[in-house]
Amino acid sequence: MADVSTAPNGQAGFVRVDIDLADRSYPILIGTGLLDDPGSWSAVANPQAQALIVTNDVVAPLYAQRLSAALAGQFRAVRTLVLPDGEACKDWAHLNLVFDALLGAEADRRTVLFALGGGVVGDMTGFAAACYMRGVPFVQVPTTLLAQVDSSVGGKTAVNHPLGKNMIGAFYQPQRVVCDLATLDTLPERELSAGLAEVIKYGAILDEAFIAWLEQHLPVLRARERGAMAEAVRRCCEFKARVVGADEREAGLRAILNFGHTFGHAIEAGMGYGAWLHGEAVGCGMVMAAELSARLGQISADDARRLERLVAAAGLPVRGPRALSPDRYLELMAVDKKAEGGAIRYVLLDALGRASMREAPDALVAATIADLTGPH
Amino acid sequence: MADVSTAPNGQAGFVRVDIDLADRSYPILIGTGLLDDPGSWSAVANPQAQALIVTNDVVAPLYAQRLSAALAGQFRAVRTLVLPDGEACKDWAHLNLVFDALLGAEADRRTVLFALGGGVVGDMTGFAAACYMRGVPFVQVPTTLLAQVDSSVGGKTAVNHPLGKNMIGAFYQPQRVVCDLATLDTLPERELSAGLAEVIKYGAILDEAFIAWLEQHLPVLRARERGAMAEAVRRCCEFKARVVGADEREAGLRAILNFGHTFGHAIEAGMGYGAWLHGEAVGCGMVMAAELSARLGQISADDARRLERLVAAAGLPVRGPRALSPDRYLELMAVDKKAEGGAIRYVLLDALGRASMREAPDALVAATIADLTGPH
Repeated sequence: MADVSTAPNGQAGFVRVDIDLADRSYPILIGTGLLDDPGSWSAVANPQAQALIVTNDVVAPLYAQRLSAALAGQFRAVRTLVLPDGEACKDWAHLNLVFDALLGAEADRRTVLFALGGGVVGDMTGFAAACYMRGVPFVQVPTTLLAQVDSSVGGKTAVNHPLGKNMIGAFYQPQRVVCDLATLDTLPERELSAGLAEVIKYGAILDEAFIAWLEQHLPVLRARERGAMAEAVRRCCEFKARVVGADEREAGLRAILNFGHTFGHAIEAGMGYGAWLHGEAVGCGMVMAAELSARLGQISADDARRLERLVAAAGLPVRGPRALSPDRYLELMAVDKKAEGGAIRYVLLDALGRASMREAPDALVAATIADLTGPH
Repeated sequence: MADVSTAPNGQAGFVRVDIDLADRSYPILIGTGLLDDPGSWSAVANPQAQALIVTNDVVAPLYAQRLSAALAGQFRAVRTLVLPDGEACKDWAHLNLVFDALLGAEADRRTVLFALGGGVVGDMTGFAAACYMRGVPFVQVPTTLLAQVDSSVGGKTAVNHPLGKNMIGAFYQPQRVVCDLATLDTLPERELSAGLAEVIKYGAILDEAFIAWLEQHLPVLRARERGAMAEAVRRCCEFKARVVGADEREAGLRAILNFGHTFGHAIEAGMGYGAWLHGEAVGCGMVMAAELSARLGQISADDARRLERLVAAAGLPVRGPRALSPDRYLELMAVDKKAEGGAIRYVLLDALGRASMREAPDALVAATIADLTGPH
């Protein structure tokens, strides 16, 4: 699924992974220096249309001007909207700032939105593109590891509601995803670890060999070694392409990508969005889900430990916050979208590298959470 | 496209019109007594899921209890959410009440929404269904003539933004549309006329013979004669099915359904949403668009007069409000979604029964509006 091709500028090499969704198919470009290269964007250029770059106040000073320069001449006008950083801003009020900017500029249906930033910017910009005039094109330009390996690919867009994360959204595919690996150089340590949670996830649910590769390469990934990072991003995009291509709207298979997320969302919502990074919550959630799988007899205790060690080696928390009781998790998970018809369904491991959706007794879930809470 | 079939209860006759959109196809049922008949709803029934009826404070006392009774036993729970009536409430704040109700009830992805009411309820409920957990099924139960012949069919959903009507929305198709003609008996005179504007529209853009039929039958339609009404609703649903089936996402042909709407939206926005009913604004907007077509030499002055007489005979305004200057129209129309790349495109008549999208000089548009403003 990956093709090593010459970069549009003929200089740096880049890799292309294709998401195959009939008339909604699109490419992911992975490489270094793609941001500044007009060739990365020419496929979506439209000299009669406007472009709006949506980004946040952390990413904007680093990359907005460079993207804007690369887009100049390819659109009638290029504007930039800077939102505050953070999951706490992933709400309707901030989404509405995108609509205000578009309508204030009299942007029409051909306007192209560019989501420059991490998962929050990508989710909000994608949902804004899905809704503005009932749908305008958009491009994902992920600048965090988490967004490059997961959230920017697959067309899930959303904002949060006070009663639940990602409750208001749409399945809406971008025109393309452009992952410039150089943008990862400025990523804070903590966010790098958060991104590694989703990287580990693919191994846990789809490929034990990838787990083994990560056990060897986590140190160089944390040191941001360019070659290893390119390999990790490419592999993850291929995993995601395979799953999304088979099940775009999460009717079945795609749900396994939520491994660790049911517990993780409860942590995020329970602690207040933004206190824990999404990837941190997912890392801890994967440890809980693996332990629950072990207690249900689906995997060995050793396998659960092995995954926990990997999560810890990525610099991620492996114990839940003491402020959150097991009952509170159950309450929050019941309203999470993985709850169907009253019973909570978990993504559990059948083996390292294989996952499926299952129910579990509340008491066992509560005991698992209790044993994996607080310092130990 | 229409089939006269036996009603699900074996009593009243009903007609079925099919919207053909591959895996998003659905039927429109048109008949009398469909609301109370459980058979109208059994195709979407799910004893494990919740149902939420969304309606307004005018329609609720008349029909909510009856729909709720017909749905009882077909769902795990049936709830009703009553919104305030009127276009002024078609905004994010009121839309959010639907999400609050769904999340408060821990409604999952299988929840079915029922839009019981007119165009505003249908547009908002459809958009809520499109966004809740990235999409849940919904059913249109239109109780106004306008909704039965136009807004409930075709999957256009939206809310308004202070800077423009229907700016935030989605193309999202219902599972079915159920038009109970008996609900039109309680429709206020003014709303009946507003619905007739959209009925006339189909004749103007698609079928001169239907114009002739309306010239004969407007009196009995205004008297709500059941047989004529059934015929009008069926014909309009067939017209709409044909256009939507050919162009679901308004890439081309479907835009002609906006005949009269560019001027009409300017009137609605300029006067404040709700001051003019949508159908009233469209009625007046069609007169303006026909006159503009005549001044551009595309139709005869006689044809423009003929359409104006029909609009007047439906009990609709044929002159714009004096509070709105031609310049204000042009300003408002520039931001309307029909404006592409700066130039405003109008749906104009090439003949009575044939329409296409064209640009027109601002000065000619302004003069046309000026001559069709205020009492004459």
